[in-house]
Amino acid sequence: MSVLVVGSVALDTVKTSTGEAAEVLGGSATYCSYAASFFNRVGLISPVGEDMPRKHLDAMAEHNIDTAGLQVVPGGKTFRWTGRYSEDFLERTTESVELNVFGDYDTTVPEAFRDAEYVFLANGAPEAQRAVLEQLDRRKLVFLDTMNLWITEATEALLAVLKQVDGLLLNDEEARLLTGETNLLTAARPKTVIIKKGEHGAVLVSDGRPFVIPAWLTETVNDPTGAGDCFGGGMIGYLKAGQTDFETLKTAASYGTVIASFCIEDFSVARLQTLTLEDIEVRRARFAEMISWD
Amino acid sequence: MSVLVVGSVALDTVKTSTGEAAEVLGGSATYCSYAASFFNRVGLISPVGEDMPRKHLDAMAEHNIDTAGLQVVPGGKTFRWTGRYSEDFLERTTESVELNVFGDYDTTVPEAFRDAEYVFLANGAPEAQRAVLEQLDRRKLVFLDTMNLWITEATEALLAVLKQVDGLLLNDEEARLLTGETNLLTAARPKTVIIKKGEHGAVLVSDGRPFVIPAWLTETVNDPTGAGDCFGGGMIGYLKAGQTDFETLKTAASYGTVIASFCIEDFSVARLQTLTLEDIEVRRARFAEMISWD
Repeated sequence: MSVLVVGSVALDTVKTSTGEAAEVLGGSATYCSYAASFFNRVGLISPVGEDMPRKHLDAMAEHNIDTAGLQVVPGGKTFRWTGRYSEDFLERTTESVELNVFGDYDTTVPEAFRDAEYVFLANGAPEAQRAVLEQLDRRKLVFLDTMNLWITEATEALLAVLKQVDGLLLNDEEARLLTGETNLLTAARPKTVIIKKGEHGAVLVSDGRPFVIPAWLTETVNDPTGAGDCFGGGMIGYLKAGQTDFETLKTAASYGTVIASFCIEDFSVARLQTLTLEDIEVRRARFAEMISWD
Repeated sequence: MSVLVVGSVALDTVKTSTGEAAEVLGGSATYCSYAASFFNRVGLISPVGEDMPRKHLDAMAEHNIDTAGLQVVPGGKTFRWTGRYSEDFLERTTESVELNVFGDYDTTVPEAFRDAEYVFLANGAPEAQRAVLEQLDRRKLVFLDTMNLWITEATEALLAVLKQVDGLLLNDEEARLLTGETNLLTAARPKTVIIKKGEHGAVLVSDGRPFVIPAWLTETVNDPTGAGDCFGGGMIGYLKAGQTDFETLKTAASYGTVIASFCIEDFSVARLQTLTLEDIEVRRARFAEMISWD
């Protein structure tokens, strides 16, 4: 196993101006794994409940994702999230969250996954992220995604794991939180910091060198859920294939952007399931044309 | 005269988290003219009051701007704007506006300016924009900037002038207004529409082809006033030098972006006055590096 993704696998209920999807496959680690799996086989670690439909696990398995690390917790219920997007998709309201089995789970990494070199710690409790990381002796590149909850409520634990990662992903608001309220960035100094700005793209700073990438100008949006996770997953998936120098990071970000742009075209992982690497390359070429100048 | 700029020349009072500047040179046409003047001599048409300090006009004249079209209105007071920016510079509150001589002025174009080919109608009343335009028989390329006030209060007059322009510049909010409340874009169909998104850069759509350009990641901001006008002015200034095909529009937008990034480093036009075309080219090369990938 070379790319390992750790985080939530969920059942989401999503309401947007174009429709509604109830109890569909979601979760940060799910989106991230799908995105990374276009480049490499991916190992996924997450707890799920007994209520997780078998078809979702089968679909993942067909998509280059090794689900051996999905622990089905006896008697447990899967993590659930319900959210609603504004008419223009730019704002999101969480209507309910049930952590269920994701609240506290066994972080033992299956033997077959312990040689993972490329690791994506998708959004989750910093304690669990660290527990997993410490079992991976061969790790070469670790990206971590986090959210405001952990920045404010688990600052020390987050700092401890941050010191062991190469790249940190945040959204705009979280970046302000991190630089405003605490000194986490200065204390941990991850080599690469990636600010995800949604419809405005992303900014990547690596060893002090900046890179800015806009979002694809999309015509079809049905469900923005998972776009940020696809961006990160696409990056780590591509990075596995090559170097991790600055130029390669830029290229990886272009793949992340394009995969995210497909993700939001349909609810859940529906678009990702039919997507091919060729589709990705075609759009990536059009994207390059859309943002380049002489 | 080949590039002509029409709009406001003002005395601004600006308050930001880094300082305050009282009664300094401002106005949309001022910023636009400075930006365009790096590439060509610029004719500027605007009314000013008797209170406009001579030093400002002298400074413009030294910066490749022909001020023969600045009408000093006898007994008149110059347009004044007072504004305050939020701590992070992202929000602006207008504290007072006095239109003064800009409220209703003589739009006669001086004889020497009537052969202008490249025209920038900076933000102002659509009636005045049209009156000026109709005196320019040799116009080849006309860009128009407008704001929410004119979209809602002078819709018909704006539509009339829009039908005669090649490019329309708007900010994000105005673009929503234009597509939301009225049918102006569909009715006028300017060949090129440019949405200025401030710290998120700009989106340009020309004959249906999209181009996205991020903003320069700036380290020094003191006064964001005039950034959008510099973007437009830099574009029209550069376009004068060459073709107006899609690739050239993209290049022009890169110059506009870079000139705007210098503008915000100091209050009023202070940074633009010391800026050289070489400074612009150096940053433009760094900018290209910052946003390109293989």
